[in-house]
Amino acid sequence: MKRRTDLPSQHESEQQVAGNGLLHRRALLGKGAAVAGVLGTGLGPNATGAAAEQLTEPSWGLQIGEDTPSYQTPSKFTKNIARTLSNPKFEPRSSIARTPHHLLEGTTTPNGLHFTINHTGVPNIDPKAHRLLIHGLVKRPQVFTLDALLRYPLTSAPAFVECGGNSVPLFSPTPIQANLQALHGLSSCAEWTGVKLSILLEECGVDPKDHSKWMIAEGADAPHLMRSVPIAKAWDDAMIALYQNGEPLMPGNGFPMRLLLPGWEGNLNIKFLRRLKLVTGPAMSFWESQVYTEPMPKGKTYNLTFLNEVKSFITNPSPGQELKQRGIYEISGIAYSGRGKIAKVLVSADGGKSWAEAALQAPIQTKAFTRFRLPWRWNGGPAILQSRAWDDHGAFQPTRSEFVAARGQLDSEPPVTAFRNHHCNVITSWAVSSTGKVTHVYA
Amino acid sequence: MKRRTDLPSQHESEQQVAGNGLLHRRALLGKGAAVAGVLGTGLGPNATGAAAEQLTEPSWGLQIGEDTPSYQTPSKFTKNIARTLSNPKFEPRSSIARTPHHLLEGTTTPNGLHFTINHTGVPNIDPKAHRLLIHGLVKRPQVFTLDALLRYPLTSAPAFVECGGNSVPLFSPTPIQANLQALHGLSSCAEWTGVKLSILLEECGVDPKDHSKWMIAEGADAPHLMRSVPIAKAWDDAMIALYQNGEPLMPGNGFPMRLLLPGWEGNLNIKFLRRLKLVTGPAMSFWESQVYTEPMPKGKTYNLTFLNEVKSFITNPSPGQELKQRGIYEISGIAYSGRGKIAKVLVSADGGKSWAEAALQAPIQTKAFTRFRLPWRWNGGPAILQSRAWDDHGAFQPTRSEFVAARGQLDSEPPVTAFRNHHCNVITSWAVSSTGKVTHVYA
Repeated sequence: MKRRTDLPSQHESEQQVAGNGLLHRRALLGKGAAVAGVLGTGLGPNATGAAAEQLTEPSWGLQIGEDTPSYQTPSKFTKNIARTLSNPKFEPRSSIARTPHHLLEGTTTPNGLHFTINHTGVPNIDPKAHRLLIHGLVKRPQVFTLDALLRYPLTSAPAFVECGGNSVPLFSPTPIQANLQALHGLSSCAEWTGVKLSILLEECGVDPKDHSKWMIAEGADAPHLMRSVPIAKAWDDAMIALYQNGEPLMPGNGFPMRLLLPGWEGNLNIKFLRRLKLVTGPAMSFWESQVYTEPMPKGKTYNLTFLNEVKSFITNPSPGQELKQRGIYEISGIAYSGRGKIAKVLVSADGGKSWAEAALQAPIQTKAFTRFRLPWRWNGGPAILQSRAWDDHGAFQPTRSEFVAARGQLDSEPPVTAFRNHHCNVITSWAVSSTGKVTHVYA
Repeated sequence: MKRRTDLPSQHESEQQVAGNGLLHRRALLGKGAAVAGVLGTGLGPNATGAAAEQLTEPSWGLQIGEDTPSYQTPSKFTKNIARTLSNPKFEPRSSIARTPHHLLEGTTTPNGLHFTINHTGVPNIDPKAHRLLIHGLVKRPQVFTLDALLRYPLTSAPAFVECGGNSVPLFSPTPIQANLQALHGLSSCAEWTGVKLSILLEECGVDPKDHSKWMIAEGADAPHLMRSVPIAKAWDDAMIALYQNGEPLMPGNGFPMRLLLPGWEGNLNIKFLRRLKLVTGPAMSFWESQVYTEPMPKGKTYNLTFLNEVKSFITNPSPGQELKQRGIYEISGIAYSGRGKIAKVLVSADGGKSWAEAALQAPIQTKAFTRFRLPWRWNGGPAILQSRAWDDHGAFQPTRSEFVAARGQLDSEPPVTAFRNHHCNVITSWAVSSTGKVTHVYA
């Protein structure tokens, strides 16, 4: 067949920038013809008739559809796009629901799919009866109703919330064979709207120059979960969040109000917030002294570790998916840092031997999900896909050997839900086999 | 009672910047004490004990909550935060569902509450069986499956979608007494992710220098709704949208794919998109020649009017709400423009005699909702609240007299759902009575 001169060859149109088929992040933009016949069902130059004929009339084009609900929910064809539940029979233990990042796109986690962890179920709180008390070492203790909070200046910002236990299956000495949702599903991102905590503390007569105090934050549900927060976070960016992606908080995410500490360990972002008590030091509560601590290799333990460090993972392709034919794919993933903005994400298709810089979706926002993307031509051979993120403070993700040297690993492969350590931000690796199967590996 | 010296007086702490109590947009930031006792339930300097006592233990603090669903939905205490339905009995006519902006905040419309209009119900489309055909005046007609589209470079962007019929109750010669949802509820904003249409057109061999052609876009549901779109929009920012706020499109919003034309009349953003046919001129379909046209005062009619002009409205306070006590409130609202970014929003509390500049929530994004906010001290007297937006192209909202002079008005008060004209972006006015009642007025 004669080469069509209007179709650039692969080499002309694609700029390979790293090993094993990684293309420049703008390789396909404005060069759609480069992938013609590879991705579309190309019907050839004179196939308009044939193409139109292929548009058969499915049943939904011939009949009345369904009625319109007052609150819309997803298609019944996307029932698989759901949170996985750790406790589906609702036994008397914690209930963990993980976000299916491998089935989502963009930078927002929709409210239906935001991860949640609740320890005695989801409380059914009447917002009119709920109160927030700020007291302790303040000049003027105050009780706030939801209606009162709504009269204060509000602020909106996207922020990820991540459980300290997210990604901890990667402490295993062998790569646990589970999908992205099981490995990294305890992190989600929403636009939160609420009252800056600094405004309320000033309302209670706390001096904004006071950086010495701590706050004990307490939830209104049965466990009355309690964490200690240094007051400096209030003068920075802490918020009493009332809205999540525009609507009131979801019941599992703290309705009617939660503490939001952007970039800090999820458990600190006390849901159903009913009390902030100002004190002189941390309370060393169960959750901060017993649960959210990090055993270190030489017998020491970190605690009061608040920051979620810079992290990234590839959402597509990812384990459980299968590449069905050679050719162009988009590698897509999520990066974020509790310190600030994502500065760059590098992607490798050869297990870290060579790297290419991914495109970052603008606007890049502080302490929020940033979507990265890079085109890749899969040649049908084995590949190991990795992403590595840097933030604007110069922090970056460790390789597996760097991570294990600093933080250690478990002696044996734990169940995927075992939270024996916390705050894992190691590079994640997906192997693509020559049959197109994607699995979790260490590289 | 002795004046507490740590509490600045109202005049010291508040900078009034326009008539009838409008304060500087940063008046309350860092000056929380200015509103102590007005907004919170101030308990006085030594009330820690009393305050703690007020924290009684409601039932949700004493019992196990509810189980965790795989897809979470709002609290049963927010059932009123719902779309209003024009056709709740699903009779054989269009079904219109309006967004409750007066109960939402931030810049995102959650997927459950995005407005929808469907003419023969919501089709239940199997995404695996759905096809998109691009044909007509192209070199290589192509049929795309959803899986094929997912291999192209994706892009994410927030964009508002607004029905050409949004706000048309304001063509009435008298102000229709309805709430914000009824007046302006046919506009919503989401983060959309999909494939840029320019990439697919190039894949079909269309020359990106070709600005002469038109595309006929057709939906796959029973009405096969058809609109003509100038190809220039494809080279600009048109997208085949696949995801809405991170998850696949909602069924009512076009699942599994829709045409997204940021800033252009909602009806053009063909849902359930199954066909784009490139042609030499507009088809003059029913929807563009009969429905979405604008009768002008002197007997002429506009058609093929695509752009949604700059608009804003105050969401809080708004009709149906009642101010229960004098004091500080935050005036909050939404602004957007089909041309680009919002440049500024002015707010008046005296029916347009004086204006103050509102704070705009960053980042301000093109063709997306921008939240504006301004503190206001209500003195208990009558007030007329207005907002007026400017975009970065210098376009701004007309006053009512300017709007009527240019566009005319109806002879009599129509039902709130009568779409006899389109594209209304006049300034909206809310009156606050001395009893705190909020109503729709012309001013």
